[in-house]
Amino acid sequence: MRKEENIVFISPEQMKSEFSRILAKFGFTGSRADQCAEIFTLNSLEGVYSHGVNRFPRFVVYLRKGYIIPNAEPSPVSRAGALEQWNGNLGPGPLNALFATEKAMEIASNSGIGLVAMGNTNHWMRGGTYGWMAARKGFVFIGWTNTEANMPAWGAKDFRLGNNPLVFAVPYNGEAVVLDFAMSQFSYGKMEIYQLGGKQLPYAGGYNNKGKLTTDPGEILLTRRALPIGYWKGSGLALLLDIIAAILSGGLSTHEISHMEAEYALSQVFIAICINKLNNSGSVEKTVHDIISNVKESYPALSGTEIRYPGENIIKIREENTKMGIPVNKEVWQKILTL
Amino acid sequence: MRKEENIVFISPEQMKSEFSRILAKFGFTGSRADQCAEIFTLNSLEGVYSHGVNRFPRFVVYLRKGYIIPNAEPSPVSRAGALEQWNGNLGPGPLNALFATEKAMEIASNSGIGLVAMGNTNHWMRGGTYGWMAARKGFVFIGWTNTEANMPAWGAKDFRLGNNPLVFAVPYNGEAVVLDFAMSQFSYGKMEIYQLGGKQLPYAGGYNNKGKLTTDPGEILLTRRALPIGYWKGSGLALLLDIIAAILSGGLSTHEISHMEAEYALSQVFIAICINKLNNSGSVEKTVHDIISNVKESYPALSGTEIRYPGENIIKIREENTKMGIPVNKEVWQKILTL
Repeated sequence: MRKEENIVFISPEQMKSEFSRILAKFGFTGSRADQCAEIFTLNSLEGVYSHGVNRFPRFVVYLRKGYIIPNAEPSPVSRAGALEQWNGNLGPGPLNALFATEKAMEIASNSGIGLVAMGNTNHWMRGGTYGWMAARKGFVFIGWTNTEANMPAWGAKDFRLGNNPLVFAVPYNGEAVVLDFAMSQFSYGKMEIYQLGGKQLPYAGGYNNKGKLTTDPGEILLTRRALPIGYWKGSGLALLLDIIAAILSGGLSTHEISHMEAEYALSQVFIAICINKLNNSGSVEKTVHDIISNVKESYPALSGTEIRYPGENIIKIREENTKMGIPVNKEVWQKILTL
Repeated sequence: MRKEENIVFISPEQMKSEFSRILAKFGFTGSRADQCAEIFTLNSLEGVYSHGVNRFPRFVVYLRKGYIIPNAEPSPVSRAGALEQWNGNLGPGPLNALFATEKAMEIASNSGIGLVAMGNTNHWMRGGTYGWMAARKGFVFIGWTNTEANMPAWGAKDFRLGNNPLVFAVPYNGEAVVLDFAMSQFSYGKMEIYQLGGKQLPYAGGYNNKGKLTTDPGEILLTRRALPIGYWKGSGLALLLDIIAAILSGGLSTHEISHMEAEYALSQVFIAICINKLNNSGSVEKTVHDIISNVKESYPALSGTEIRYPGENIIKIREENTKMGIPVNKEVWQKILTL
């Protein structure tokens, strides 16, 4: 990306300041503009541009249309010990998710584990953000969101399942191991990038109009039959994540979200586990280190390549973008400056 | 399977009685022989023969070798609110898992959610069993186990990851929706069955010795490079499940288990969530029903086929086997009768 002519490099401070200015203009009061700007900037700094700077203009459209209510804050619905149900009141997804993550950690600090289920909330942008946050504070984190329908169930042609991103995170070495993955093998956004570049996908990503698996992104973008990871397994997992998010939060499920004019009022689950409370908390660091080291010592399939753990690359990108600035498409940045 | 000549049909009562007799002979006291026999029988009744009747002889070998200690019971290690750590003391995996599931439900009944992490336990046979059990009693269940290394990490040639089965279950219609899946696309057992039948796998299941993905089970059984579901995604998930199981239980991780002479002393996680405690508990049944109905109404890729939800088939197999008897390979049954 860096060598293309249509890229500008924006410092995190400048990016955050622009986002914050725009959010204040759209009615985010007090620290809310800054906090929300911080999350969009962090997602960009860590290389997840699709849910950072590139997504910001669409976030503004949703604010304009009233799908996202700038100053709405979560309100409690019901509570049973370490299990809490909250209503996101259609507030900004990143702020609601931040709140839910902190609440889950607070419960876990008292009860060992905390689960916050939040209905009626909005797109959290990048789920990994909340995993990193909790894990860097010493918690194990498990969380997921449902989405509008964007993937057929196994054996089906039409969208009935969401790609429902799922996050697992654990503390490691002052940083974290963070797995953040959607249930489709490739996102439509990723397939569009391959199509624009005239490239085939590295692995089959869906079905063509003859009902055959294909690596041609254009064929899949026509049929819209994206492939679940692991075929029937990812299809089943997407279904279960939607069911559990909907029943625990009391919020909407994928099929209900899909009947609305846009993707809002989502259901999400945030689980934090306080490992400091355990007998073996002193040896956790070594346990994780030994597991990671063992896997990294694997014999690579292609000599000279490195076996990576989930999140490893994020740390490198963060360092690089902190030093060099965050690479942004010139047109995207120009558009943001006019907002 | 039913039409083959080398199959006998055994009633669940007879199967359980044989298992119970053998387990008592190997020192299972009191109700433990019956309880353990019940789980092996149930797994067979519900069609998971590989972790029921077909696995029973190997379970007996492990008893003989002392890897499984018949009357060892779990002991508490540490407790922090709704988070409990237990030592399985190398007791029988199914009995330990039953204990941990019941303990997690007990904690959840008080605290909304309960997590029991158990180290130093043994193979639980079929994880779905504990999901069905908890869900049929009204709980959401999430659980997983680590295993010995049997799958290369993404980009690697040698085994460093376990296939670490993961279970999600929710109550539905007096029964349950239960997803029980391993991180490899196909188990080695499944690939051996395809090979014996002279068949290709329906989808690529691993790599051949040229480093290419293949559907030929024989080629994969040679390289032992089974494919993780969703390529890098299933590889990452297997890693995170092992890390979390090891640190929460204080037990062994996959690489440590793999250094022993056999697969024992595993680490497992059991999470139960009590949905009766929530505000919307009265509408949970309808929510699940509506989601399942919506997905089942999908437009099928092959006309005339049915879109199924995870666990749907289990109910049919259970009914059929209850009526007709459990189909068992004659040689396997003969061997069991001599134990």
